[in-house]
Amino acid sequence: MLEARDRVGGRTQGGVLEGAPVELGGTWIGEGHSEMYALVAELGLETFPTWNDAGSLLLDLGGKQSSLASTKGATPRLNPIAMADLAQGVARFEKLARSIDPARPWAHPKATVLDGQTYESWVRRNLRTPTGRSYFRVLAEAVYADDGADMSLLHTLFYTASNGDLETLASTDRGAQKDRVVGGSVMVAGRLAAGLDVHFDSPVHTVSQDEDRVVATTRDGRAFQASHVIIAIPPTLAGRLTYQPILPAWRDQLTQRMPAGTVIKCFAAYPTPFWRDAGWNGQAVSDRGPVKVTFDVSPPDAEIGLLLGFVEGSEARRWQRWDETQRRRAVLDCFERYFGPSAAHPTSYLEKDWSAEEFTRGCYGAHFTPGVWTSYGDVLREPVGRIHWAGAEYAVEWNGYMEGAIRSGRVTADETLRVLP
Amino acid sequence: MLEARDRVGGRTQGGVLEGAPVELGGTWIGEGHSEMYALVAELGLETFPTWNDAGSLLLDLGGKQSSLASTKGATPRLNPIAMADLAQGVARFEKLARSIDPARPWAHPKATVLDGQTYESWVRRNLRTPTGRSYFRVLAEAVYADDGADMSLLHTLFYTASNGDLETLASTDRGAQKDRVVGGSVMVAGRLAAGLDVHFDSPVHTVSQDEDRVVATTRDGRAFQASHVIIAIPPTLAGRLTYQPILPAWRDQLTQRMPAGTVIKCFAAYPTPFWRDAGWNGQAVSDRGPVKVTFDVSPPDAEIGLLLGFVEGSEARRWQRWDETQRRRAVLDCFERYFGPSAAHPTSYLEKDWSAEEFTRGCYGAHFTPGVWTSYGDVLREPVGRIHWAGAEYAVEWNGYMEGAIRSGRVTADETLRVLP
Repeated sequence: MLEARDRVGGRTQGGVLEGAPVELGGTWIGEGHSEMYALVAELGLETFPTWNDAGSLLLDLGGKQSSLASTKGATPRLNPIAMADLAQGVARFEKLARSIDPARPWAHPKATVLDGQTYESWVRRNLRTPTGRSYFRVLAEAVYADDGADMSLLHTLFYTASNGDLETLASTDRGAQKDRVVGGSVMVAGRLAAGLDVHFDSPVHTVSQDEDRVVATTRDGRAFQASHVIIAIPPTLAGRLTYQPILPAWRDQLTQRMPAGTVIKCFAAYPTPFWRDAGWNGQAVSDRGPVKVTFDVSPPDAEIGLLLGFVEGSEARRWQRWDETQRRRAVLDCFERYFGPSAAHPTSYLEKDWSAEEFTRGCYGAHFTPGVWTSYGDVLREPVGRIHWAGAEYAVEWNGYMEGAIRSGRVTADETLRVLP
Repeated sequence: MLEARDRVGGRTQGGVLEGAPVELGGTWIGEGHSEMYALVAELGLETFPTWNDAGSLLLDLGGKQSSLASTKGATPRLNPIAMADLAQGVARFEKLARSIDPARPWAHPKATVLDGQTYESWVRRNLRTPTGRSYFRVLAEAVYADDGADMSLLHTLFYTASNGDLETLASTDRGAQKDRVVGGSVMVAGRLAAGLDVHFDSPVHTVSQDEDRVVATTRDGRAFQASHVIIAIPPTLAGRLTYQPILPAWRDQLTQRMPAGTVIKCFAAYPTPFWRDAGWNGQAVSDRGPVKVTFDVSPPDAEIGLLLGFVEGSEARRWQRWDETQRRRAVLDCFERYFGPSAAHPTSYLEKDWSAEEFTRGCYGAHFTPGVWTSYGDVLREPVGRIHWAGAEYAVEWNGYMEGAIRSGRVTADETLRVLP
């Protein structure tokens, strides 16, 4: 196993704030993520529920703040007109998503039409109220770290089908944000790697294959030979390696068309999770940036309070160009707007811009821009000779999550085992 | 000058068919391409008009073939309803395009809305007849080698504004396909390079910079030092080099979002340009693939007849996976459909899939997918320290054409001259 970094985990990474572990990358294990729960148990790790018990979720849409006593479900409670609009939008989107086979989104009878437009175009056509549109937009930003403009409608339908439904994607205790790993999600990769022969600091530069073997050469010139190779890096990075012979046109053009999302994760530490006492559960959903979504990521014993804010999509693309002091101020302004003046002065602050990472270049994952699923989707998982592909982007089920990465890894491992000499 | 290939010219390349020079890549100099005409003259080269004089353009839309006595203008003559639909569509699109400043498309008051949808979405909303929609779609495929689904509406408006108007983009004798260079367009690059110190077969692998200099290292380990460097390769390839220090997040994410189009150029040679005698000018526009657009590219003396067919966008993405024999048959079937049985049996056949070229990976150029101009467009031409960018994709005027490449090169050369020590 050749690892570009000095650590394993890729888009999961551990950090520490005021002595508490925080997840700088992939965080949650969700409802239905059966492989992850099994793996966590197998590795002797434990999970604990994301803080969701007491208090209300804070909605900050169209300049009005409201509280939501329950976070159960993708549809919040709003004024009756917005509520009806939103309910109809959710129902329409869910119905469309249910018609997609996540293993073959390009095979849908209306694939060309669905893939010819953006998610944003669908939102504008199907949601009538500003609040309804705002909610759908923030939902997309929170799920993909992309704007609705960036993505093919077909891609968002595929992704929703791959992950159950909108409610699963959006909700905490019943959905994709259900549980966390005690000590941090990166411990899964860490324990998995413990039994493997990992070469760290070994970014691969060239992958050569002939009829008998594959040779992977690192930037510093070390060559590793194998019968087959599995490339498990983000698609946009996989497209940058030098291949001998060069990849076929369809493979190269595909990875040109799978850009990564844009997210800056921002953490603030406080002596206590004070928002809980004020009746908030630490989750905010807003249409005003830079931070539009927050979570309470305090440690299980709540010895300190930790707020996590996401700067996503075009907000991240703007704010990644500012210096950290200015960005920190803007982020804390959001926290204060949501949870009051106590949020303005954390004891510590930490942030992580995944698009600035040489060996990631964007999170949470790749998205298909319009026209790509119908042009090249059918060869997404196609090996090229002795080269095979794996990662969260290749998963049929739970695409984009740690669960999807594990499942894709299993499928690709089986694929290579079948062709091994 | 470090050149990856064993030749100069990049996306222009010379080929020979039955002794006649053909352009495997960029071909035409158009109305208003003043820098190219000046350069051609300066280099002692000559131009000749694209064959457009006699005969009709053939329209093959919605299963019906019709002839068009004049190719002057973007709006062909059709049945009155389709004609009215098309005329209104052209007028609306032109009006929108005129409102775009090609130097700053992101600054348009409705930039977010225009960039949040695909060209295809606009076509579906603004064209009512199948013929009107077909014409707009084929137009996009012919101009970009992409489907309307692939591109941001704002991008197509920018591109139209950058190149004058739809009529200029679409027409031959008054537009972008007006003239050709005697001997082939690649002679321009060839003569330009004659006075330069070009290192051939020198693909750059790493670009390192510090406070004092830049070092470009080739794949085989040769290092070249300079005060500044101009990277003049397609954006998707520029994003694949290794940079030390690594590029800022915004630059890397931008080049992740500028995929190249998809085109296979197909040439067939015949003893004579027989279609001229039958009353056709060799130009066909069809909504049935794989070849939807053709041109007469016979040599000026017409000693032989040469037909050029474009397989573009999703057609190219499908047909690039077939073997050459099958593809050739499908292409010649199209030629026969347009120009009769004599077209079925050429004396020679030649094709070029630009997405299969390691040092191009797609033509005609990069397109911005939805959301990209408004997210990252303002830093498209921004240098990174001592690294500057040039090429047809960076041009404000005549973006995407040889003319744009020359103009971008001049602008970037001026930019570096200003900062040279």
